[in-house]
Amino acid sequence: MRSITVKAPVNIAVIKYWGKRDENLIIPLNDSISGTLSIDDMCAHTSVASSPQFTSDRMWLNGEEVDISANKRLVNCLKQIRSESTHDWTHHSLHICSRNNFPTAAGLASSAAGYACLMYSLATLYGIESPERISSLARIGSGSACRSVYGGFVQWLKGTDSQTSVARQIVDETYWPEMRVLVLVVRDTQKDTSSTAGMQLTVATSALMKHRVEVVVPARVEAMVKAIKDRDFHSFAEITMKDSNGFHAVCEDTYPPLQYMNDTSRSVRRFCHQYNEYYGANRVAYTFDAGPNACLYLLDRDVAPVVKLLLRYQTGLEVKGQAVDVNGVELESGLTARFDDKPCIGSDSLRYIISTRVGSGPQVLTDEHQCLLDGQGLPK
Amino acid sequence: MRSITVKAPVNIAVIKYWGKRDENLIIPLNDSISGTLSIDDMCAHTSVASSPQFTSDRMWLNGEEVDISANKRLVNCLKQIRSESTHDWTHHSLHICSRNNFPTAAGLASSAAGYACLMYSLATLYGIESPERISSLARIGSGSACRSVYGGFVQWLKGTDSQTSVARQIVDETYWPEMRVLVLVVRDTQKDTSSTAGMQLTVATSALMKHRVEVVVPARVEAMVKAIKDRDFHSFAEITMKDSNGFHAVCEDTYPPLQYMNDTSRSVRRFCHQYNEYYGANRVAYTFDAGPNACLYLLDRDVAPVVKLLLRYQTGLEVKGQAVDVNGVELESGLTARFDDKPCIGSDSLRYIISTRVGSGPQVLTDEHQCLLDGQGLPK
Repeated sequence: MRSITVKAPVNIAVIKYWGKRDENLIIPLNDSISGTLSIDDMCAHTSVASSPQFTSDRMWLNGEEVDISANKRLVNCLKQIRSESTHDWTHHSLHICSRNNFPTAAGLASSAAGYACLMYSLATLYGIESPERISSLARIGSGSACRSVYGGFVQWLKGTDSQTSVARQIVDETYWPEMRVLVLVVRDTQKDTSSTAGMQLTVATSALMKHRVEVVVPARVEAMVKAIKDRDFHSFAEITMKDSNGFHAVCEDTYPPLQYMNDTSRSVRRFCHQYNEYYGANRVAYTFDAGPNACLYLLDRDVAPVVKLLLRYQTGLEVKGQAVDVNGVELESGLTARFDDKPCIGSDSLRYIISTRVGSGPQVLTDEHQCLLDGQGLPK
Repeated sequence: MRSITVKAPVNIAVIKYWGKRDENLIIPLNDSISGTLSIDDMCAHTSVASSPQFTSDRMWLNGEEVDISANKRLVNCLKQIRSESTHDWTHHSLHICSRNNFPTAAGLASSAAGYACLMYSLATLYGIESPERISSLARIGSGSACRSVYGGFVQWLKGTDSQTSVARQIVDETYWPEMRVLVLVVRDTQKDTSSTAGMQLTVATSALMKHRVEVVVPARVEAMVKAIKDRDFHSFAEITMKDSNGFHAVCEDTYPPLQYMNDTSRSVRRFCHQYNEYYGANRVAYTFDAGPNACLYLLDRDVAPVVKLLLRYQTGLEVKGQAVDVNGVELESGLTARFDDKPCIGSDSLRYIISTRVGSGPQVLTDEHQCLLDGQGLPK
């Protein structure tokens, strides 16, 4: 039995992927850019094993066996990666065990980390070393997974076919070491439209989508790459916020409209603008995916003040992930006065915060204890 | 003393006005279309009087005297209309008394009805008879007021200057007699950005606005005129809903974003789509202006069923305006089952409903009892 165990990260887009030009190959209508989040705080964790003794491909996800044949994309991925390897064991059956190491119900896109982790594991097992090939293979599983195969900040080039639609690293995780992320998990009851169905509907019905894809996003991508390379937080934040809003604008323009943000999401947005207005420059940037949770990008100096301000609205709010010491922080009285004057966030509207940072790409784990499969290739 | 008393209607746009190309003359970036609401249920009510005995222009609005000189647009309007009349009494001082006859805090644009009423009164007093001139004069007071000088469905032609930027009637109020309107007044705490400031910010910052103005709206205007002339409710509703969403999309795309709708507004939107999906055709259309209240356009057959469905969510909800007899209505069990399965609207999220219809343009009132000024030209 040969086995490989990998941890792979979540990524949070600052220029959004929304809309495919090829549904089967998952070729997007525009480039997108994301930050990769540290696997210390959130990750997918996958072990793959192949053995001539295994009688069929089997998979366990978060503790439960799943029917691989029922998942067309998964079948596709396995077929494709096997076709690209020349090793003997490529044709042996596989056992796959995977779990997501982040709080349940966080509403964070688990499929990106999951497929990146799976395809990175299999690529390692099968001797496929080209990061571009791994990125392309992950893309077939879940579009934005192609960005989770790199750390730091990552651009998914839309490309024209399966070979050219791949991610590449803009800068690695050491380039902008002050960059931090707070995920604000929002209370919500409304069931969201899946992003696959949602983006199809936007492409089919939004009168503004074509302009976004052809004119607005290309200019933002170029400006964002520059902002990241220049470590220009003010510009980075402005583009991030504008593109999040532009993405939700085309959701609003979809027929019937897609409603991912709720009033709490919007209150977090006001909170950020109010914070930035106080300082006369952008110090925190929000971005929202296809759900109500907020991801805030900010530099390390602002993490504790922002968390302390949020705690003024909602005492007892739990912070998971990296510890945040709010005791040492003295908020400026002008700042608190402004927020007392215009309170933004309801007292019970957030579930918790995850404090994290921009981190590395997938990591192969060599410690046998980290393998999720036992000597027989069954879940431990 | 010469006096004139007029009632003028509110109008609700189905193709939205948002964005000026000339701030002073109020020349809009695109054509817009609205339905005029019956003055029986909501109206502005204005008396104007001129007399050589009056020593200065004075105005009372909703019971309180206002300082005319502090309102630049009002000063502009008075100056402009006086310059267009040749009567002797044009140079006499004016007394103006005006009030809005609709529920306070309805959050409905009172300025459109108010300026239409004022300029229609003064035009009558000064012998200006051209509807196009009256429309243009009302426009200088408040852009969308130019549409309230006609009944039925009305198009504001953007034009290129003050003479050509005027409204014209598409069809009068008898053309589509089944057309009804329900105004759903929504509970809200958030203070909205004024539409004047909001539209300036959208024009200055939204990356999607130019495309809306130049490409999207012109096609919708053409299709909407056809739908109205054909009395094609399904198309009328689709264009109305799409343009409301398109308008709120550019608000979302504004930087910082403009937030006019809230979660209740969005729940009303879902309610309408659910109702239409049940029937497999559009039977009710929502539209939202720069605030959270919903205006629903629908045909008479659907008024009682829609109100009865809303009462299932919120018992005791008050209906103002035209009486709606829900007792005689039997809701289809498939319809109620669908709404029970997916409840949309919170149990205390609406304040009340105003039930009304598409109605006539401004009416000159000849009954002396309706005059708001006494024999001395002071408020009664």
